[in-house]
Amino acid sequence: METPVTSTASAKNTAVLLLHCPDRPGILADVTNFITVNHGNIIYLDQYVDHVENIFFMRIEWDLTHFNIPRAKVDDYFHTLYASKYGMTYYLYFSDQRPRMAIFVSKMSHCLYDLLARYVSGEWRVDIPLIISNHPDLEPAAKRFDIPYYCLPITKDNKAEQEAKELELLHKHKVDFIVLARYMQIISEDMISAYPLRIINIHHSFLPAFVGAKPYHAAFQRGVKIIGATGHYVTADLDAGPIIEQDVVRITHKDTLQDLISKGRDLEKIVLSRAVQKHIEHKILAYNNKTVIFN
Amino acid sequence: METPVTSTASAKNTAVLLLHCPDRPGILADVTNFITVNHGNIIYLDQYVDHVENIFFMRIEWDLTHFNIPRAKVDDYFHTLYASKYGMTYYLYFSDQRPRMAIFVSKMSHCLYDLLARYVSGEWRVDIPLIISNHPDLEPAAKRFDIPYYCLPITKDNKAEQEAKELELLHKHKVDFIVLARYMQIISEDMISAYPLRIINIHHSFLPAFVGAKPYHAAFQRGVKIIGATGHYVTADLDAGPIIEQDVVRITHKDTLQDLISKGRDLEKIVLSRAVQKHIEHKILAYNNKTVIFN
Amino acid sequence: METPVTSTASAKNTAVLLLHCPDRPGILADVTNFITVNHGNIIYLDQYVDHVENIFFMRIEWDLTHFNIPRAKVDDYFHTLYASKYGMTYYLYFSDQRPRMAIFVSKMSHCLYDLLARYVSGEWRVDIPLIISNHPDLEPAAKRFDIPYYCLPITKDNKAEQEAKELELLHKHKVDFIVLARYMQIISEDMISAYPLRIINIHHSFLPAFVGAKPYHAAFQRGVKIIGATGHYVTADLDAGPIIEQDVVRITHKDTLQDLISKGRDLEKIVLSRAVQKHIEHKILAYNNKTVIFN
Amino acid sequence: METPVTSTASAKNTAVLLLHCPDRPGILADVTNFITVNHGNIIYLDQYVDHVENIFFMRIEWDLTHFNIPRAKVDDYFHTLYASKYGMTYYLYFSDQRPRMAIFVSKMSHCLYDLLARYVSGEWRVDIPLIISNHPDLEPAAKRFDIPYYCLPITKDNKAEQEAKELELLHKHKVDFIVLARYMQIISEDMISAYPLRIINIHHSFLPAFVGAKPYHAAFQRGVKIIGATGHYVTADLDAGPIIEQDVVRITHKDTLQDLISKGRDLEKIVLSRAVQKHIEHKILAYNNKTVIFN
Repeated sequence: METPVTSTASAKNTAVLLLHCPDRPGILADVTNFITVNHGNIIYLDQYVDHVENIFFMRIEWDLTHFNIPRAKVDDYFHTLYASKYGMTYYLYFSDQRPRMAIFVSKMSHCLYDLLARYVSGEWRVDIPLIISNHPDLEPAAKRFDIPYYCLPITKDNKAEQEAKELELLHKHKVDFIVLARYMQIISEDMISAYPLRIINIHHSFLPAFVGAKPYHAAFQRGVKIIGATGHYVTADLDAGPIIEQDVVRITHKDTLQDLISKGRDLEKIVLSRAVQKHIEHKILAYNNKTVIFN
Repeated sequence: METPVTSTASAKNTAVLLLHCPDRPGILADVTNFITVNHGNIIYLDQYVDHVENIFFMRIEWDLTHFNIPRAKVDDYFHTLYASKYGMTYYLYFSDQRPRMAIFVSKMSHCLYDLLARYVSGEWRVDIPLIISNHPDLEPAAKRFDIPYYCLPITKDNKAEQEAKELELLHKHKVDFIVLARYMQIISEDMISAYPLRIINIHHSFLPAFVGAKPYHAAFQRGVKIIGATGHYVTADLDAGPIIEQDVVRITHKDTLQDLISKGRDLEKIVLSRAVQKHIEHKILAYNNKTVIFN
Repeated sequence: METPVTSTASAKNTAVLLLHCPDRPGILADVTNFITVNHGNIIYLDQYVDHVENIFFMRIEWDLTHFNIPRAKVDDYFHTLYASKYGMTYYLYFSDQRPRMAIFVSKMSHCLYDLLARYVSGEWRVDIPLIISNHPDLEPAAKRFDIPYYCLPITKDNKAEQEAKELELLHKHKVDFIVLARYMQIISEDMISAYPLRIINIHHSFLPAFVGAKPYHAAFQRGVKIIGATGHYVTADLDAGPIIEQDVVRITHKDTLQDLISKGRDLEKIVLSRAVQKHIEHKILAYNNKTVIFN
Repeated sequence: METPVTSTASAKNTAVLLLHCPDRPGILADVTNFITVNHGNIIYLDQYVDHVENIFFMRIEWDLTHFNIPRAKVDDYFHTLYASKYGMTYYLYFSDQRPRMAIFVSKMSHCLYDLLARYVSGEWRVDIPLIISNHPDLEPAAKRFDIPYYCLPITKDNKAEQEAKELELLHKHKVDFIVLARYMQIISEDMISAYPLRIINIHHSFLPAFVGAKPYHAAFQRGVKIIGATGHYVTADLDAGPIIEQDVVRITHKDTLQDLISKGRDLEKIVLSRAVQKHIEHKILAYNNKTVIFN
């Protein structure tokens, strides 16, 4: 890796707790108390209550330097003392455990390059152990950044078999989450259930407009004045998973289909990278097919 | 009317020609020549060629002060000399003929007030002879601005009859085009064919996402991160007519359904007014269910 | 007032507490505890810590239905029990006390109409007892909405005297805050110190670009590709007070100065109204010449 | 170069003419006639008249396949027949002459990677013969894409000497234009006059706000709600050259200085690349310190 030019992540060892549970009085006080009493210094706290569904959401990050509870026991203590009491769904992360991300690509390179450039410049605290593709086209791009590239061509006959190999590779490389960087294949339910809410896709339209194939063609045909891109978690329902990030760009009647594709590329890569960054920073909680995004 | 604070329209008498036809060499030269040779001073010219469909589009505006051809004969001459030759669809307007606009409303006032405020402040060269509604709620708003308000409640039994009365009113008031300012009724084909590409609707979503009723509810349910509004011409196909203008606003998980509705109101009124302004200024050409919008 | 079409404000009686103080552990727990123990039902809570300046900010709103502490004593109790302890700057509001807003205008009506339309349609919980102007032009607009209009022409000779009359009027009408809706006069320090952080101005540029007079002329001259508007609190430093809200719109070389002014009008009124709404809803905390804006 | 994934440029050999001159009747007809009569097939035509300054601007592109005039003589003929007659400033380009672009960088890689990724994926018709830097930091990035990297450290003592070497390199590599991809040095007048309106800089603010050094610090300090980036031509006046492209992103009080820098990076690289693309496609005409940007 090159000398990191920037560092959004602090150099301190910290823990992050992401949680949601039915809203009740006292949760916030209890959780902050747990950390403060044990000499954790809270450096980030944000909470949100969905008053319609009555759900409490929270993200809290604290400095571990003087924290009393041994790191290996934090999960156990928190589970016993609070998670059971409040019926919490929670996720605990430590800042020195870099998430491991696999990238899936087909033939288009713009999202891949954007991800790799951020990776080598140290923008993100992440490891990228491998790139998987159904085409050989982007192997040279992977080589430029010294990332192993596995080409597993998929036909309708070998899909199950190839996906099994992919899962093996992901397992072997201890992959935590998957980024579909314009990977033009539908992901099977096996893969999705192996990585629930841990596969991020970029769809090249403003969902739910133009679901499915060739959204730019459809947008051009419909004569819209704005096009968009959507970063979302993959679920069994095509293009219908929880939306993480969206953005749009204005077009006019002068823009050809090719112009839409060209302007869309810039949207896609930025929207995908914003979604990936939120995931890496543990700032997303998904529930009811929606997302809570912490700042 | 109050003293106009601004005047986007020039004080000169001008003519505007909007046209499209199959693209062929020489059209632009011929049309500009027609005007220049007859001592019309061109003050606006924009043209666009759709190279996929091979269609030529043009908007040209010229000062009539020294124009040789008598105003009453311009149409005839242009038709005979050029429109037939090139197979043109064209529209001729004179700046001193203020278009007459009817507004249809139901119960929500935000779009109505935005239109009326622009009207009385002289932002637009338009007349508003009447407001039609299926509810009495906005009569006080109409009164504030001294516009006649006709309340024609619509039920499933009297729809045809009431629309016939509306058409009569529109005819009597010499209405040129209709603005549906959050009018919560589907327009019948009779009305649409009486005002082809002359009924402008505001749909409270980013079309084609969330067609039909309750788009904010649907957007909230889907968990989108951006909401939008669309100004379009009404055709027989619900929410599927040519799009004139769209805009969007960013939302977050913290926005309630009520927040979406509130943020959406501001979008709706601005997007509708932008669409209406383009129509009033004769800057829209619709074809193939799309629009060409001149600057 | 017309039948309110919408109601962003709840029908319940609530209290809102806005506060900031040096950050210390326990503040959040103490304040939420104060409310919960006394049977207040928290319906909104958001807090933010500025880790650079080490300041804690909070907005909390609770239902007063079962709240034990008599309304007239809430301020006293909170002050004694918590505000002193933590060195808090705080503001307490009750939802049934509608803030009273004065509008200052000169000759342009677009912002005024936008404010008044929201007012009469019940979008906002606010009273507008009077409009003050240095010109007679907008009296007809005020009359449409039945708001008293005071015309106090200002010259360089009578400025102090006229402002004294304005302050008297504001006092007599128990005005809580002032909105400068394109009021083309510099506000004197007397007026500012009578309404500290309670005068909202709309500046027709993307501050700090184009401070001072004629920003659209300056933007046109500079050849920018985007123009903006800024809603901010007025301080003694011209166009340099805390920014509440900004927005922008894209322009091109084809836009004339008049187009900039026309596009800018739509920006100005929406940005100003967003800023005013945040103020009315007690969602702004200003400090160090910046603002914290709660959702 | 990798297999080009996309091709915005047509495969045909075309010529592009960019021109401006005092507006007079007949220019458009004359120029289109020149091309049509000589069997050039016009595939793009856009014109614009600045009615304030009375200047006519035009971009025209035509297919050379059946064009009668030998390519080497087009310039001569056009100059003699039309440019002199109308007092035109004009630029003639041929699509098979790929412009040669030098990139100047300091230590930050995000803009560089964005440019290089577009280059190797074939998004642009451009050659990049060299990268010049005043620091060694980005040599590894250049190596990944096999572009020669020249490190010429600049101190206040050696500036003139090093710039002379740079000019020599640019000359030797037949460089047509220069892109300053976050190059943190002020360009001397010698360099600017060697490349007039052919040096593109990205400034990390919404100009003219926050001219000069550390604009994110200044924006953070001022408490703005939107930050921006500006791509512009470099002139002798620092950060005051003709603006090509600007864009903005919304921020909140929750964004730290580091967040501004991080969000700004994405803006900078996209805005710079859009500006560079417009330059490569010969779609910019600069005059009076402004730009006309063709679609």
